[in-house]
Amino acid sequence: MPSSVSNHASISIQHARGAYPVIVGSQLLKDALSIISQELTLPPQIIVIVDSNIPEQLIFTLNKIFSQNQTTPIIIPIPGGENAKTFTTFIAVSEIILENHISRNTPIIAVGGGAIGDLAGFIAASLLRGLPLVHIPTTLLAMVDSSIGGKTAINSRHGKNLIGAIHQPQLVISDTQFLSSLPKRHFRAAYAEIVKYALIQNAPLFTQLDKNLNLTREHNENHIQELILASVRAKKQIVEADEFENNQRALLNLGHTFGHALETMHSQSDTLIHGEAVAIGIVLAFRFAHRINLIPKETLQRIVKHIHSAELPCNIPPDTSIDTMISFMKNDKKNLHHNISLILPHDIGHTSLHKNISPHDLNSFLSECIKQPLTPYALHHA
Amino acid sequence: MPSSVSNHASISIQHARGAYPVIVGSQLLKDALSIISQELTLPPQIIVIVDSNIPEQLIFTLNKIFSQNQTTPIIIPIPGGENAKTFTTFIAVSEIILENHISRNTPIIAVGGGAIGDLAGFIAASLLRGLPLVHIPTTLLAMVDSSIGGKTAINSRHGKNLIGAIHQPQLVISDTQFLSSLPKRHFRAAYAEIVKYALIQNAPLFTQLDKNLNLTREHNENHIQELILASVRAKKQIVEADEFENNQRALLNLGHTFGHALETMHSQSDTLIHGEAVAIGIVLAFRFAHRINLIPKETLQRIVKHIHSAELPCNIPPDTSIDTMISFMKNDKKNLHHNISLILPHDIGHTSLHKNISPHDLNSFLSECIKQPLTPYALHHA
Repeated sequence: MPSSVSNHASISIQHARGAYPVIVGSQLLKDALSIISQELTLPPQIIVIVDSNIPEQLIFTLNKIFSQNQTTPIIIPIPGGENAKTFTTFIAVSEIILENHISRNTPIIAVGGGAIGDLAGFIAASLLRGLPLVHIPTTLLAMVDSSIGGKTAINSRHGKNLIGAIHQPQLVISDTQFLSSLPKRHFRAAYAEIVKYALIQNAPLFTQLDKNLNLTREHNENHIQELILASVRAKKQIVEADEFENNQRALLNLGHTFGHALETMHSQSDTLIHGEAVAIGIVLAFRFAHRINLIPKETLQRIVKHIHSAELPCNIPPDTSIDTMISFMKNDKKNLHHNISLILPHDIGHTSLHKNISPHDLNSFLSECIKQPLTPYALHHA
Repeated sequence: MPSSVSNHASISIQHARGAYPVIVGSQLLKDALSIISQELTLPPQIIVIVDSNIPEQLIFTLNKIFSQNQTTPIIIPIPGGENAKTFTTFIAVSEIILENHISRNTPIIAVGGGAIGDLAGFIAASLLRGLPLVHIPTTLLAMVDSSIGGKTAINSRHGKNLIGAIHQPQLVISDTQFLSSLPKRHFRAAYAEIVKYALIQNAPLFTQLDKNLNLTREHNENHIQELILASVRAKKQIVEADEFENNQRALLNLGHTFGHALETMHSQSDTLIHGEAVAIGIVLAFRFAHRINLIPKETLQRIVKHIHSAELPCNIPPDTSIDTMISFMKNDKKNLHHNISLILPHDIGHTSLHKNISPHDLNSFLSECIKQPLTPYALHHA
């Protein structure tokens, strides 16, 4: 770390073939090349895949930052969001990169939100069967979730993230400076993933989140850095124990089986973004758990109150087709033999995988959820 | 192994996350499902990607073989050969598979030559971030080379195998029965890869190959099984020591940097098939090594004599453009920073990676090779 870089923290994530640091701080971008050069041997040419929705000025800044020390960046701007994660974009970007006679130590630097990271990550996994990868997440969601743990993917027309690889980055640089321009809606949505970490296996973290909800709503910068670090630590614990998702890594999908289905169905409109769909998915998981007597009503109430207070949605959009939703849920990667698997809570901070949920039960559950939307108030009087 | 399966040998290949058996024998196909069920938990649905160029009767046989014990096969026929390894086919086959609501234990069974194995392997690596993979190679080339070691790939318009993954199979079944219908040209071409194993690091094997060249030319069945086993053992040694190609696995590319370039350039015609291009590539590597005084003329003569006697080509097709050839060579995955790397021999059975071969030197070398084609006779009098 160059001496000019201050006010940062670093967490090391171990995996089967090594380890990588996740550096969290403010004003890190200007020193990115120097930080990268401490982790990777920099060849004369580097590939920067960047979200073209970032301010134009920033693209020039990136070009300047990555043009030092005999390095030439090839900057590839891609519009971020789920539409980046198509076969067409994957092919087009791959061919652009290969045109440059890259070598096996040419790094791919992903600068953007989760979609750019997922796309760039799968490209890095696949070109020459594996190139070094650096994530520079620009959204809170990517900082707390997708940049950690090596999952990369593009979408199929049959569902999200169905084609991909586990390809660990060599470095993650989370510069909270990017967050100053993040729309509040995206900020709130990302918060759903932070809540998720607490609910999976960290009850004390949930108590903290509950207590500090005001700081979260104020976007207090130090508090946000703490939230990012807590999330990285929580995810580190899970992905280090199960890099290839044979066991507990699946727990990270709490709320995601419902959430991915909702997100895919509403992907053409602006109704739901990922974290919002996850927030609804978390509430649905707790509601389903309550229905089958895994948790008492008070636990469900506490969760709904927290998510509602964080200004996140708790209910399925009323125009959702349950049959279509279940059909998308059937394509979830956790499933075996056409039955649906769900991550369900047994308590706050305790979750497990439940296999063989019958689509029929789900159908009546989801129909009921649409008929009876939940708010802390409605629940209280239920 | 079911008791009905006799006359086979099994070699176990270790890798970072486990091991898999390579079973070599005759008449194994009819017991394939039972052999597979000993290595994998068979779900109700399996995917069979098969070369549609195999006799139609065999597709029916496959359907019957894989339709036992509550298993339903989804058989996807694809025309084999390099044209199978395109983005378009990768996408189309992936979407067909995902349409079937597969789960993470749905195996992909690849029945075909190297191209089908490479394509099916990359699909297995990528769908749901990794499905179990079984190779049933139907060509000698796939039995001795591509089915072993986990390399999977598709082609870019900038070169062969530039997009892929290392994804180890869970089982390889090499049934020599398939070879009875293999065209002699393909048989001879595959032999180039067997010679390659000997030349890389097994001088005694080369002596054996020299001695038994008559048995090879007669396609003696027991001898062929021995050749396959010797090749699997040779490749096992290299891929176990270096699964992810950081060091000596690159040696397996002896003859391939030249070979891939020639193959890509002649891919639209019938001038060269893979093994023939490799044979020429091996001769070029020995010729280049002789030119820079790594080996004496006698060693070069011995290699050329053997390859020529195996009825394989030794020379670059006269209509080859050297500039285009070098441009393709620059895209080789071993390269660093626009210079070309080559695997070169120091002796029979001793090879190493030489980096930074200048394109200029290569240009004059290749021009000379085109001007002065080599035969054992011409070489003798050179």
